[in-house]
Amino acid sequence: MYREEMVTKKLTIGITAPKGFKAVGIHCGIKKAKKDLALIYSELPATAAGVFTKNKVVAAPVIQCKESLQTSETFHAILINSGNANACTGKVGLENAYSMAIETAKKLNVNPNQVFVSSTGVIGEQLQMDKVINGIDKICSLIDDGDDLSAAQAIMTTDTFPKIFHKTFIINGKEVSIGGIAKGSGMIHPNMATMLAFVTTDAKLKKSLLQKTLKKVTDLTFNKIVVDGDTSTNDMVLLLANGASKVEINENTDEYNIFEKNLYDVLKKLSIDIVKDGEGATKLVEINVIGALSDEDAEKAARQVALSPLVKTAIHGEDANWGRIIAAVGYSGIDFNPDLFEIEINGIPILKKYYEVTLPVQLANQTLNSSEIKINLYLNIGEGKATVWTCDLSEEYVKINGSYRS
Amino acid sequence: MYREEMVTKKLTIGITAPKGFKAVGIHCGIKKAKKDLALIYSELPATAAGVFTKNKVVAAPVIQCKESLQTSETFHAILINSGNANACTGKVGLENAYSMAIETAKKLNVNPNQVFVSSTGVIGEQLQMDKVINGIDKICSLIDDGDDLSAAQAIMTTDTFPKIFHKTFIINGKEVSIGGIAKGSGMIHPNMATMLAFVTTDAKLKKSLLQKTLKKVTDLTFNKIVVDGDTSTNDMVLLLANGASKVEINENTDEYNIFEKNLYDVLKKLSIDIVKDGEGATKLVEINVIGALSDEDAEKAARQVALSPLVKTAIHGEDANWGRIIAAVGYSGIDFNPDLFEIEINGIPILKKYYEVTLPVQLANQTLNSSEIKINLYLNIGEGKATVWTCDLSEEYVKINGSYRS
Repeated sequence: MYREEMVTKKLTIGITAPKGFKAVGIHCGIKKAKKDLALIYSELPATAAGVFTKNKVVAAPVIQCKESLQTSETFHAILINSGNANACTGKVGLENAYSMAIETAKKLNVNPNQVFVSSTGVIGEQLQMDKVINGIDKICSLIDDGDDLSAAQAIMTTDTFPKIFHKTFIINGKEVSIGGIAKGSGMIHPNMATMLAFVTTDAKLKKSLLQKTLKKVTDLTFNKIVVDGDTSTNDMVLLLANGASKVEINENTDEYNIFEKNLYDVLKKLSIDIVKDGEGATKLVEINVIGALSDEDAEKAARQVALSPLVKTAIHGEDANWGRIIAAVGYSGIDFNPDLFEIEINGIPILKKYYEVTLPVQLANQTLNSSEIKINLYLNIGEGKATVWTCDLSEEYVKINGSYRS
Repeated sequence: MYREEMVTKKLTIGITAPKGFKAVGIHCGIKKAKKDLALIYSELPATAAGVFTKNKVVAAPVIQCKESLQTSETFHAILINSGNANACTGKVGLENAYSMAIETAKKLNVNPNQVFVSSTGVIGEQLQMDKVINGIDKICSLIDDGDDLSAAQAIMTTDTFPKIFHKTFIINGKEVSIGGIAKGSGMIHPNMATMLAFVTTDAKLKKSLLQKTLKKVTDLTFNKIVVDGDTSTNDMVLLLANGASKVEINENTDEYNIFEKNLYDVLKKLSIDIVKDGEGATKLVEINVIGALSDEDAEKAARQVALSPLVKTAIHGEDANWGRIIAAVGYSGIDFNPDLFEIEINGIPILKKYYEVTLPVQLANQTLNSSEIKINLYLNIGEGKATVWTCDLSEEYVKINGSYRS
């Protein structure tokens, strides 16, 4: 195999990097032609953890997943469809979600509550269940011949590229892997953009520890791309751990720290990929707030800057309009002294204390002439700090969202 | 005079409709060619009231206005420049704001704290004071020959039309007038768009009552176009009352109710005009939330819907994507039962309880085929209600804001 092929192959391995996991994606007919059904399967029983949307309006599959997590200790599969969110679909929608789990379980010879069901797409339309049921029959029969790329493609909506990543590392002389696939979209102001991520590992972790770890690492990654709090009806992150590596991870150990670090790397990579693929996005923007009174204040300020359409459009237009940044911090609700505010873009100081503008407008604008932008905001009043990731706001975003269903 | 001319003339009378007020707008050189300096003047001493931005970052003229309101009982003039916000300009900026008041006061033969100074435009650049001082000399000499239209034009930034309105009504057999001019822009998600409104009346009101009344009516009008809370560094509404009508308005009287009603009409018209002229806006959208547990809840929900880029782009694309609306209410933080949620667009039911979709997608989309959209959201769980006004989100918004300074 040529080196280039090896690299490509490696880039498309995610959820099957951990031993004992299989994955496949197919077209079952919800969408016109693109793949719309994915299956992730572990023959070994796996523990599982889930983090779900906080929206009061909860899609049927989210209810199915939460119930499964509560009623079973071990799990075997995740079935995901795209093209239809199965949200705001009432009793019929919930019955459909259950049917999807029952049908999948029958084919895989497991219990229905050992199968998670997930959906993304248009809200408020019922699934065409004949197509879905036929699709389940087909996808279960193809699971041995599948690959991660097809699964990652099958969960996409307006995503422009599949998001796949894994890490393999050594614990006590044994190989352990964590892999994931994800989908984003609408990330500019991700009020209702569905964010789905499915992560697998062949490490062995107790269900309670897995849940605790997933929650913690999600807060540092997916929730730092300004998704949480403004989550969609369908958002979820699911993590399966099947123990196939024979490496057991217990709390407060060196092994745990290694595992957590690698889980962070996988989830961060998937998070960043989601931001990069934000609808219409042309720039990845990292916003660091440093020197706030508390970490909480720093995060509030960073999020407000990341959410501001005026800041995001200025970045898109490569206009280093720092007044919009300081004004966004100004209405974030935190305590700070505008006189002490400082801004650095990609390492170059733009504004120093007491409103000292350090660069002429044209040179300042040049700091934004890059596809990855790092904005550091120094409040100089405390030790609090926070980082969020976002993207710019382009005309393309409006085009995509003005005609999503048409 | 032909009837058409009379109508046009009437449409351009705002702040000088009340007796004893004069207004003029000129070009002084802050902008390349367009008018950039306006003066409103009352020979009679007037009481005044002001409502200002809640942003922690406060522009120099806002400080000057607040100090004037505190240190003087009567007032004579408002001087406004566009093209430069005099915000984030430190001590020099504040000195410049004071100088503008001092120079204007000298020319008009009044005290500096009887003059309000207001600015709008780019943040973080110092005013070219030579041009401003020359401009003040010129504008004071032209005040007798001015007109409201020129003043309203001189306060515009990315506004596409001047906002002028007045009402004349009878109290106790005497004519009383209230008039105003305003500027908006960036209203789509008006985090930092500067909103300025200047209102005059020839009624006589005590300063304290004037302040109370302005605050109350502003909350029902300008603050319902989702400006407040997310205000810019420069936002302000100023109201001058010079008593030239010889009609005194006291609290808790029929006269007060008439006055307040007409002030509401003037401020509401100016508010709606600002929304209509939102950057890139093509549709005026009224969002009514009905049947929430409280008015506060209703307002939270209405604002969240009004702020959602996904809802705003869908309205722009005439896509009656109600799932985005219900999801926005879902993350507004209020209590409600999604099963009981109902939606009406321009009087036509789109969604009934238990997710009953009442129209095929194409017919539902047609309800958005209009320049004025009224969306009623029925929560069916209480008596709380609220209205906010907003506009759609178009590609044009991004173009305008990506290149504002260029």
